Amino acid sequence: MESVWAVVLSLVYSLVAHFICYQAIKNFKDMFIKAGMFGKDLNKTSEEKIPEGLGVVSGAMFLISCFLFIPIPFLDYSELQFTQFICALLSICCMIFLGFADDVLDLRWRHKLFLPTIASLPLLAVYFVSGGSTTIIVPIPLRPLLGYDLHLGVLVYIYMGMLAVFCTNAINILAGVNGVETGQSVIIGTSIAVFNVIEIARDQFAAKHLFSLYLILPFIAVSLALLRHNWYPSKVFVGDTLCYFAGMTFAVVAILGSFSKTMLLFFIPQVFNFLYSVPQLFGIIPCPRHRLPKFDRATGLLGMSYAKFSPDQMGPGGAALLKTLSFLRLAKVEWSPPSGKEKKAEISVNNLTIINYLLKFIGPTHERTLTIYIMTVQVVGTIIAFSIRYGFVRFFYDVVQ
Amino acid sequence: MESVWAVVLSLVYSLVAHFICYQAIKNFKDMFIKAGMFGKDLNKTSEEKIPEGLGVVSGAMFLISCFLFIPIPFLDYSELQFTQFICALLSICCMIFLGFADDVLDLRWRHKLFLPTIASLPLLAVYFVSGGSTTIIVPIPLRPLLGYDLHLGVLVYIYMGMLAVFCTNAINILAGVNGVETGQSVIIGTSIAVFNVIEIARDQFAAKHLFSLYLILPFIAVSLALLRHNWYPSKVFVGDTLCYFAGMTFAVVAILGSFSKTMLLFFIPQVFNFLYSVPQLFGIIPCPRHRLPKFDRATGLLGMSYAKFSPDQMGPGGAALLKTLSFLRLAKVEWSPPSGKEKKAEISVNNLTIINYLLKFIGPTHERTLTIYIMTVQVVGTIIAFSIRYGFVRFFYDVVQ
Repeated sequence: MESVWAVVLSLVYSLVAHFICYQAIKNFKDMFIKAGMFGKDLNKTSEEKIPEGLGVVSGAMFLISCFLFIPIPFLDYSELQFTQFICALLSICCMIFLGFADDVLDLRWRHKLFLPTIASLPLLAVYFVSGGSTTIIVPIPLRPLLGYDLHLGVLVYIYMGMLAVFCTNAINILAGVNGVETGQSVIIGTSIAVFNVIEIARDQFAAKHLFSLYLILPFIAVSLALLRHNWYPSKVFVGDTLCYFAGMTFAVVAILGSFSKTMLLFFIPQVFNFLYSVPQLFGIIPCPRHRLPKFDRATGLLGMSYAKFSPDQMGPGGAALLKTLSFLRLAKVEWSPPSGKEKKAEISVNNLTIINYLLKFIGPTHERTLTIYIMTVQVVGTIIAFSIRYGFVRFFYDVVQ
Repeated sequence: MESVWAVVLSLVYSLVAHFICYQAIKNFKDMFIKAGMFGKDLNKTSEEKIPEGLGVVSGAMFLISCFLFIPIPFLDYSELQFTQFICALLSICCMIFLGFADDVLDLRWRHKLFLPTIASLPLLAVYFVSGGSTTIIVPIPLRPLLGYDLHLGVLVYIYMGMLAVFCTNAINILAGVNGVETGQSVIIGTSIAVFNVIEIARDQFAAKHLFSLYLILPFIAVSLALLRHNWYPSKVFVGDTLCYFAGMTFAVVAILGSFSKTMLLFFIPQVFNFLYSVPQLFGIIPCPRHRLPKFDRATGLLGMSYAKFSPDQMGPGGAALLKTLSFLRLAKVEWSPPSGKEKKAEISVNNLTIINYLLKFIGPTHERTLTIYIMTVQVVGTIIAFSIRYGFVRFFYDVVQ
């Protein structure tokens, strides 16, 4: 019964955090411009300076709200959960700090991969201290091969460390349209919260899901406040800070709540986007610096953006891959044969992102409409995730876990 | 016996952290200039851009070093100490983050007081969870009045919250000469480490002092690395980040190690500086925006800086105060009587900082020499502190605690 009150209080805290955060972003944004942290919106005709990196304000509000929440559910009850909560906050605080440093200093790629791993160390340590399992139950179809369970040992820790890196980058990669980073974070966060509530209602590991709720509710609250400023037309940009912050929060609740597989299901659009991007990310076909949709100044609409290159710029298997993509209608490919002496053969293919893929179907679109479409895809992803989690799971495991 | 190995390992970690930190500051400083984080050295003739806020690099190195150290002494032994260590790191991480945000965004005064209080909440929570005492032993001379012990309850938590704010601002206020912020941090840190080692040798609450050592050793290491860059002539400035970082680290080890009174003794020069500054801080006599010593371009030496104002700009009691200060040779005061119609009476008094007070005795001085003098004062402060702690304490308490 006490936990019901803790959840109610967490909701109240989150609501208050939401409104304060909304106001704080408004108050702080001029300070960002003054500090030289701003950018121009590439998808707008205006040259207005938009403050960049405001995710740090929502991150800070999240931390304040959680710090003030510490005494509510943890001090009286389990000391282990108190420790877990502190470790979770330490990892998240570290990532917000790191994200902000990245926004200010423009860190290099190797820092971006190395530092999130360091930031997740407290998390791994508390997982170890709390006797976290390093054994997994093997899915039914693989049992003839691997047996009923598998002791993974240190691999589990590597997996958890990589989870934070994956979540962070998955949200970062799907960006460039007003409201998309924040929007997907809010939807994934809400999906996690709904999942937590369902599991608590079913009385399945309720303590772990309560724990997740205490973190995810304020996260949703501050992200929504940010989204209200970041929605089309964006008054502020969120920066890398938001992606780091969101990614680590998701990783933390999934690891300490022991539902990382379900959490990954909420990333279906991001996983699709990643797989779809592989040919460009791994250099099979050339990858331009930006893969954002193309803004048409005349119509004010966003359309597909293309990579253009000559056939010899492709990696091995490039030609076959393009034919396959084209045949499966996964990409729009155009071959211009060489014309005369000057002009060499040129290939044009749409940049392989889920946003361009969407634009392939709906045609040039207003930016706000495009964001709504992407959010719809994300929600559909969540519905599929829940179907898998509560429907198809019986084909893989004996009991609904 | 294990703890000896843990200390040795902590030393090794700190040594490695020192060298990596030294190199990292070198590598990162151009990124700071590119991000617009730089300043000019007011005490130099050159117009060179000096990167500002490099304290954040040493802060980050400190966190990385501590994160990697978590498994060494804590996982196998006491879970409580593990929790304390994580809480300590959370508070420190929060302050580094905050300090960096301050350096980037130039926060307002109310944020500077409000946010450190929030950052110390995890610390207070773990103090509560670990059954921290809220009762103090009354010093002997006061016992007829107050009795043997005094239950302070929530006041203890307010005191601890204010300790972080005090330490942070005490280091921040004594600044403006190359190497002074970092130098005093290193000396105070080293004093704490020496105190810890003495207490461990005397077998007095060894676990608490070991705990403090694990945090203070890497702190000294990264601060020394910073000092090597920040020493005259400064290649980098440390920013507010260092003050927040150092202040919180001192507060954390003192609170969790239960030696906050001894720790405050190491701040004798800072306390003197604060008391001496009171007339200016509280507006009894006017306070200019900067109170740094004055750089003489011709000689290249630093001399006393003065506040100049007319008698009616003083607060109540100003005239009497100036007379007293002058009589006690605590300040150099000059009264210029009104001359003719245009010129009103003017008072000139040296800005009330310990640095100006030093300059009053030694006269105009080279910047490096001045830093060495200030460091000497700090070391003398530490010697006095130890005399009080191990000598005079018997007049106040029954046993040497």
